Amino acid sequence: MQLGMVGLGRMGANIVRRLMKDGHECVVYDTNKDAVAALVAEGATGADDMADLAAKLQTPRAAWAMVPASITGKVVEQIAAVFEPGDAIIDGGNSNYRDDVRRGEKFAKVGIDYIDAGTSGGVFGLERGYCLMVGGPDAAVARLEPIFRTIAPGAGDTPRTPGRSGDLAPEELGYLHCGPSGAGHFVKMVHNGIEYGIMAALAEGLNILHNADAGTREAEHSAEIAPLEEPEFYKFTIDTPKVAELWRRGSVISSWLLDLTAAALEENHELNGLAGRVSDSGEGRWTVKAAVDVGVPAPVLASALFERFASRDEDQYANQLLSAMRLQFGGHKELPAGDVLEAGGRKAEHEQ
Amino acid sequence: MQLGMVGLGRMGANIVRRLMKDGHECVVYDTNKDAVAALVAEGATGADDMADLAAKLQTPRAAWAMVPASITGKVVEQIAAVFEPGDAIIDGGNSNYRDDVRRGEKFAKVGIDYIDAGTSGGVFGLERGYCLMVGGPDAAVARLEPIFRTIAPGAGDTPRTPGRSGDLAPEELGYLHCGPSGAGHFVKMVHNGIEYGIMAALAEGLNILHNADAGTREAEHSAEIAPLEEPEFYKFTIDTPKVAELWRRGSVISSWLLDLTAAALEENHELNGLAGRVSDSGEGRWTVKAAVDVGVPAPVLASALFERFASRDEDQYANQLLSAMRLQFGGHKELPAGDVLEAGGRKAEHEQ
Amino acid sequence: MQLGMVGLGRMGANIVRRLMKDGHECVVYDTNKDAVAALVAEGATGADDMADLAAKLQTPRAAWAMVPASITGKVVEQIAAVFEPGDAIIDGGNSNYRDDVRRGEKFAKVGIDYIDAGTSGGVFGLERGYCLMVGGPDAAVARLEPIFRTIAPGAGDTPRTPGRSGDLAPEELGYLHCGPSGAGHFVKMVHNGIEYGIMAALAEGLNILHNADAGTREAEHSAEIAPLEEPEFYKFTIDTPKVAELWRRGSVISSWLLDLTAAALEENHELNGLAGRVSDSGEGRWTVKAAVDVGVPAPVLASALFERFASRDEDQYANQLLSAMRLQFGGHKELPAGDVLEAGGRKAEHEQ
Amino acid sequence: MQLGMVGLGRMGANIVRRLMKDGHECVVYDTNKDAVAALVAEGATGADDMADLAAKLQTPRAAWAMVPASITGKVVEQIAAVFEPGDAIIDGGNSNYRDDVRRGEKFAKVGIDYIDAGTSGGVFGLERGYCLMVGGPDAAVARLEPIFRTIAPGAGDTPRTPGRSGDLAPEELGYLHCGPSGAGHFVKMVHNGIEYGIMAALAEGLNILHNADAGTREAEHSAEIAPLEEPEFYKFTIDTPKVAELWRRGSVISSWLLDLTAAALEENHELNGLAGRVSDSGEGRWTVKAAVDVGVPAPVLASALFERFASRDEDQYANQLLSAMRLQFGGHKELPAGDVLEAGGRKAEHEQ
Repeated sequence: MQLGMVGLGRMGANIVRRLMKDGHECVVYDTNKDAVAALVAEGATGADDMADLAAKLQTPRAAWAMVPASITGKVVEQIAAVFEPGDAIIDGGNSNYRDDVRRGEKFAKVGIDYIDAGTSGGVFGLERGYCLMVGGPDAAVARLEPIFRTIAPGAGDTPRTPGRSGDLAPEELGYLHCGPSGAGHFVKMVHNGIEYGIMAALAEGLNILHNADAGTREAEHSAEIAPLEEPEFYKFTIDTPKVAELWRRGSVISSWLLDLTAAALEENHELNGLAGRVSDSGEGRWTVKAAVDVGVPAPVLASALFERFASRDEDQYANQLLSAMRLQFGGHKELPAGDVLEAGGRKAEHEQ
Repeated sequence: MQLGMVGLGRMGANIVRRLMKDGHECVVYDTNKDAVAALVAEGATGADDMADLAAKLQTPRAAWAMVPASITGKVVEQIAAVFEPGDAIIDGGNSNYRDDVRRGEKFAKVGIDYIDAGTSGGVFGLERGYCLMVGGPDAAVARLEPIFRTIAPGAGDTPRTPGRSGDLAPEELGYLHCGPSGAGHFVKMVHNGIEYGIMAALAEGLNILHNADAGTREAEHSAEIAPLEEPEFYKFTIDTPKVAELWRRGSVISSWLLDLTAAALEENHELNGLAGRVSDSGEGRWTVKAAVDVGVPAPVLASALFERFASRDEDQYANQLLSAMRLQFGGHKELPAGDVLEAGGRKAEHEQ
Repeated sequence: MQLGMVGLGRMGANIVRRLMKDGHECVVYDTNKDAVAALVAEGATGADDMADLAAKLQTPRAAWAMVPASITGKVVEQIAAVFEPGDAIIDGGNSNYRDDVRRGEKFAKVGIDYIDAGTSGGVFGLERGYCLMVGGPDAAVARLEPIFRTIAPGAGDTPRTPGRSGDLAPEELGYLHCGPSGAGHFVKMVHNGIEYGIMAALAEGLNILHNADAGTREAEHSAEIAPLEEPEFYKFTIDTPKVAELWRRGSVISSWLLDLTAAALEENHELNGLAGRVSDSGEGRWTVKAAVDVGVPAPVLASALFERFASRDEDQYANQLLSAMRLQFGGHKELPAGDVLEAGGRKAEHEQ
Repeated sequence: MQLGMVGLGRMGANIVRRLMKDGHECVVYDTNKDAVAALVAEGATGADDMADLAAKLQTPRAAWAMVPASITGKVVEQIAAVFEPGDAIIDGGNSNYRDDVRRGEKFAKVGIDYIDAGTSGGVFGLERGYCLMVGGPDAAVARLEPIFRTIAPGAGDTPRTPGRSGDLAPEELGYLHCGPSGAGHFVKMVHNGIEYGIMAALAEGLNILHNADAGTREAEHSAEIAPLEEPEFYKFTIDTPKVAELWRRGSVISSWLLDLTAAALEENHELNGLAGRVSDSGEGRWTVKAAVDVGVPAPVLASALFERFASRDEDQYANQLLSAMRLQFGGHKELPAGDVLEAGGRKAEHEQ
């Protein structure tokens, strides 16, 4: 079927390619004319502006906005301005689901169907397909199912879950209508929250392995930390790149994120050039706030988020306060990195 | 090559089957005679006791102990008692790596090679193969490589990590010599610590989805918690079994544990019959203690462990204390489950 | 000076008493006529309704609303309806500071000063005084300083902080103008977030002491948890009520919450009748959400909040999922509370 | 009564001073002759070596070792070598309670009473007295009660806990016999674990206040973090030194650690010269390990410990791994501190 695509960055363009490969017709628009031209060269129909986009789409129209979350609001308004009752707008970006709830209600009043499509797959999506978490009105989502089916990965070589039989359900093909407007991005939000947790679990574990040799280098940082009590048990030099590769086969923790970890470590054994300042996007934050709102515990997801904050030194003032308190109650001086403690000085480190 | 197997429970027996299928010769022993007989019927050589086991193995001998961690110490001593210098004992169970370090040193003195083989794969190992994390003396581990290679999953259909080329390395076949005695179980220990973290990330996230309808059932538990401030954003009824299935395809969090989650939810949509009292084995605990010992932060892995403790009500006394404090400073009465708060009573819940 | 008080619950009434004792004049109003009558008997002027309240206050008027957060919005609107430009409304309840920001802007447009006064002190406030965290326009806050000074505890017997000299600053008397509208409740919100953290630290620590005898009762719950590896180190029977009392004198953790803990344990040594279902009010939640918003790590404050959620079994679905996953990958059956594990069965508990 | 003191650092010397002021007789020894001379000048009896110490003490002797934990083992052995059956050795340092359990058993065999005395009070102890948590044999602890009573703070001006009456119990005077050898340091260990938690709660909360102005400086770090969604609610400039001072009066979180925080902030408003690299001593670590051993959740205490590890960049490798994973799945480049994101670039930050 026919789909308009607004926003031809990496993801938007790849979705268009995936759709055209499967026989769908795409009308594409971006403020970047080169991006439009590139896809026109591959078979898409180019649009000069929103009005042109609307003109080139048959009714009931459907346009997919694949733009940064910060401008999604503006872009979907522009699309709505040239669309008519019965048309549908799909937001495939990383919007906060609350915006979808609001927009869904608003556009419903003018007869336009608003659909949120949480999209996972990263840079591998063109080849693997994109996992789609969809929210919106039943009829509109049903009408656009051929689009979702093409963008999604399909069953692929994922083994079927025991107990399932008969025709493949949409979720087995990689897309799911999760509920009304907002439900798609809500599920996508939690997906990313889980992603943070899994990433952190892998990173923390590998960090322990990386430090399994602490017993062999005790002296060098003895000034700052409590002495390692049983250094004889921490004398392993673990090759973490090999371990990450190993776990990909047959272990309980095999996962796509582990595949990526192994790839990253193969590419850059020592992780050179990485400072370890980890960014975060909105979804991890929204997930923790949602957990707090509905009152369910999420210590793993919250810890994973907070570790990222700390990686960017956002814990600085808190840590200075801790040092300041220690100075007050015990006269404990803060020790610079790498300092060696004078004999007998350990006592000063103890907090009474 | 030839291997003795001591302990013919599910895992021991399946490893024997996997070895025999690949042409290895197995001499098997268990205190349970039926278990021995069953494998003899499948082609193994049965042993009547440890001495018989030793007699039926050619030197240099190799015996794999696959017994509960609580009796591993006793069993490996029994094997050692009938073995000679040059022979090797492999502990394939879930020993604490510290025991391996100690045993490795002890057996080295009498010329016996002690090898620890952390083994992951669960009930699926017979078919999938077992991921092997091996620690021990270089020569002995090298001698036994054919055994490890057979037990391990092999390359299977796991895509090769970009950047790797040439012959497949052992870690690409699912086994790795991680270091001296103890290194195998150390890596396995951290593997399980990560497993706890990933499981918890999935469980917490799905719990949030499960409660995405909190805004529709606010009244029923309003007495106990702060009121949901924006119920309009929590009116989704998410089908978590379908979502778990969905994420298996193309999403960033696709993983074997997600496969199992989808299978569990397909088998038992409502999780009937499960009380949510989650057991833990030693590895998760040892991982947290190792992190504390070497001084690296592991909040995600620790939180995952603590959630299991709390699931078994080990937080009971702490919670009673919190209720008791609240009663002291604010006169806040503890509210029974399901109570409805009288009008205006919310104020009493606020902590001044 | 003169103050109107709307809401004569425990806190409102006690603030009125504290004000009158210091020579201030109070006009009091509540929908509960008995509450009004009780304070009139103690010397207050009673008001029949809001209009009467306004009539009995001299301009520029000042009225303090001390009502449940859920009705604060309505009540301050009612006050504003009978007030004039130049008058001031103080919200002494536990409002979300965001509501203060909004109300402050709204009332500023009609010339009414809106002041938020976060109030801490609990049931002890009448005697101890209430710690006041105030937000609002400079001139209005300055005008009402005599009121704040009376309600606040004053310097009391708190030793002066080293380095401070000269006249006592407001913060040394127990009240502080923290910033514009909302700043008072923002500081109060974080105060309560910290309170959750301190309470949890005490509760967790005492729970460890309470279980210091784990090595003497290992058998009874061996089925559910990993075996205690060194029971010889956990054979202490600690008298936690005595320890809480002990720490009140000279220890680093002496604190008012410890005082309350000691009092609670003295009153009810075994904490009988407390189920350990811990309520939470909005402030702890808002604190965590604020931390997430500004991007600073708050794992301790978040953990303290999540423990309360878990105490009310809001972790139930997550825990059932964990049990379900364990059943899938290891065939691990969930063990009922108190079960004794059959010999050799420990192995089944290990996760491969 | 008479007491030998071995180890005349700040704490040992001050305990001697406190004892002598109350009429006790002290025989003092240290390898530092000047330290001995200083106390002799104040009235103590000096000892030239351990044998001299033993000679100058009447039987049954009692000697208090107040030395760094790292040499405690050696020092108590030296004392034991010159002591006789019936004598007592008190370890007042920060030993791991497990060492006390072992030493208690060992010395019991030669008739020497071993007592562990966990000591809290920091640099303020000379004046305030030291809170004493004592473990050891009943008779020996009872015999030395006059010593403990003098070192402890006494009832002071701490208000009596409601419900207590009659003679003051030892715990009301600041010392407590907690149980057999090891129980004293066990209770002290948990005390310090709680201390970490309270410190972290205060530090995290004040860090949130410190960043309550995030909405006014959004631009400067927008490249690294998710954009602040509602900057209008984060425009407060909170004076944290004043807030810390304020909370000391009448608030629920008033505590000695808050007193110290206020003092630290008064002394150094901007915390200049503090890098925020926070040391930790053994007790916080042992507490978390004890919680893991006995299987009770301690997420707050563990988080507090892990924050200290992270403050010393022990999370570095984990964070590099997170950045490396993000680079793999999303092509997300790590952004240097302070970078400004190009227009539209936010999208790249989102994790699909």
